[in-house]
Amino acid sequence: MSESLGAKLQQPVVGRLAIIGCGLIGSSLARVSRRKSIAAEIVVADASAQVCARARELGFADRVDEDAVAAAKDADLTILCVPVGANAAIAEKIGPHLKQGSILSDVGSVKGAVATAIAPFVPAGVNLIPAHPVAGTEQSGPDAGFATLFLNRWCILTPPTDVDQAALDTLAAFWTAAGSNVETMSAEHHDLVLAITSHVPHLIAYNIVGTAADLEEVTQSEVIKFSAGGFRDFTRIAASDPTMWRDVFLNNKEAVLEILGRFAEDLSALQRMIRWGDGDGLFTLFTRTRNIRRSIIELGQETAAPDFGRHQGDDQ
Amino acid sequence: MSESLGAKLQQPVVGRLAIIGCGLIGSSLARVSRRKSIAAEIVVADASAQVCARARELGFADRVDEDAVAAAKDADLTILCVPVGANAAIAEKIGPHLKQGSILSDVGSVKGAVATAIAPFVPAGVNLIPAHPVAGTEQSGPDAGFATLFLNRWCILTPPTDVDQAALDTLAAFWTAAGSNVETMSAEHHDLVLAITSHVPHLIAYNIVGTAADLEEVTQSEVIKFSAGGFRDFTRIAASDPTMWRDVFLNNKEAVLEILGRFAEDLSALQRMIRWGDGDGLFTLFTRTRNIRRSIIELGQETAAPDFGRHQGDDQ
Repeated sequence: MSESLGAKLQQPVVGRLAIIGCGLIGSSLARVSRRKSIAAEIVVADASAQVCARARELGFADRVDEDAVAAAKDADLTILCVPVGANAAIAEKIGPHLKQGSILSDVGSVKGAVATAIAPFVPAGVNLIPAHPVAGTEQSGPDAGFATLFLNRWCILTPPTDVDQAALDTLAAFWTAAGSNVETMSAEHHDLVLAITSHVPHLIAYNIVGTAADLEEVTQSEVIKFSAGGFRDFTRIAASDPTMWRDVFLNNKEAVLEILGRFAEDLSALQRMIRWGDGDGLFTLFTRTRNIRRSIIELGQETAAPDFGRHQGDDQ
Repeated sequence: MSESLGAKLQQPVVGRLAIIGCGLIGSSLARVSRRKSIAAEIVVADASAQVCARARELGFADRVDEDAVAAAKDADLTILCVPVGANAAIAEKIGPHLKQGSILSDVGSVKGAVATAIAPFVPAGVNLIPAHPVAGTEQSGPDAGFATLFLNRWCILTPPTDVDQAALDTLAAFWTAAGSNVETMSAEHHDLVLAITSHVPHLIAYNIVGTAADLEEVTQSEVIKFSAGGFRDFTRIAASDPTMWRDVFLNNKEAVLEILGRFAEDLSALQRMIRWGDGDGLFTLFTRTRNIRRSIIELGQETAAPDFGRHQGDDQ
């Protein structure tokens, strides 16, 4: 996809933006905020001195700091961009220093457990509005980010029921300016939706790659050589950041186990069809699943090029 | 990947090439054979008059015929490019008309059951050498093919133990000229290797897409909108040809059920880790699986671009 982010904004959506954690998501947010002038000032913090040094070289922030408190102080919008398991500790540290009337948000793939973990550290007068941009790649770190990562992707906000409407509007405007479509739902529903569209798919991918690695009768070298038969598709998301994904599964246990149960039940039925040679049953399922991809492509959430466009540039 | 097939051959590998079935694989074979002059004459047959008409328009064959017998007669190399369940019936029809000393091959994703089904119809003096190019896309039909489909992909030959060496060399030379790396193994081993690198991955993909379609709590529209979280990766192979894949599972039952059993066992262990909050166990698996992708990329079987290169052309 070659798409454009369009022109700069007439005026910034927020004054000072603090991004805590400068990996794929944090650095992409900084890049798009600078490119589109979404924030008047961009401050980035990361606990790693090495990441901070690299972020300074890449030059997408006005200031880079190892200290999250220094970064979040006086910010109008602070966004936690760390693995969900790390959110609470940071919130505890920066909470007392957050500006009255400011917004505290995050980008975590789990919303229920995380909001509960952060909330106790958010002082009255600060607006906690969790968010989840449904975007990413299998790569990590400040070099992996890019300004168009959120373009045409959905960002889900899960505000508390008593949310301040002006604060919610500001956060929605921020994500819209970053290129996203914004949707609002409850944290509980978010966690169930993402269990099927993201968490269980990742778990299954990790699992099949693990199964392949452990086979005695088929060598690792054979798995690699013949991976173009389908297997390699799974290795992409199974190459995602291990810390991030460990935290996702520890924090969205209930919904993941529910969806996983459904998946396992359905797989047993398929296994039975194979064992008993039920060709019609297999054919019916295999036909039904084609339509979903078509809809995803039509909605601009996927490339229409065959093989994900891997052959782009091949002469026909 | 932008790759080149290189120059034309000095002289054709075979005289008359007959391709029976003009879908993704058959039409790609015709295209590369013409482009590289691998065959002196290219004859294509398809049971569908519509497909034949389209093949004539596309112009990659010297002759297009609805009748498989007419196409295979006098061919030096006949390649069946139909769903594996259709091979036997075609072999029965064309068998008596095959030229003495010629080669009969196929491109099926299953080798054991198919060789057994075809063999009775192959007269003495005709060399049956099953083959499987591990290449494809999720698309079907004569328009979906392209000349570089087999480039740098492996083609597995599963010759009988008493194979004629000259015939085997010719078939290997044919696939090498088409751009493939050629490997030889037993049909039985092939079926086990492909069960893990292709068949079970497809089954799992079909299954998760089916599970998602059946959920009551999450709407189809939500699944589609938030599919960029990982789910959309699975929809590609779950959009593959239903007839081809029904036949694969009906014909490689034993190996698929064995690998599926291993997958389900491993998934149960993962499920247990989530239920009991075993973060270390999850982290260990998630770290291990990263290396396999790295090896697949190093071996040229996958693009190194993040997100399969979906963002190619995005400005950074």
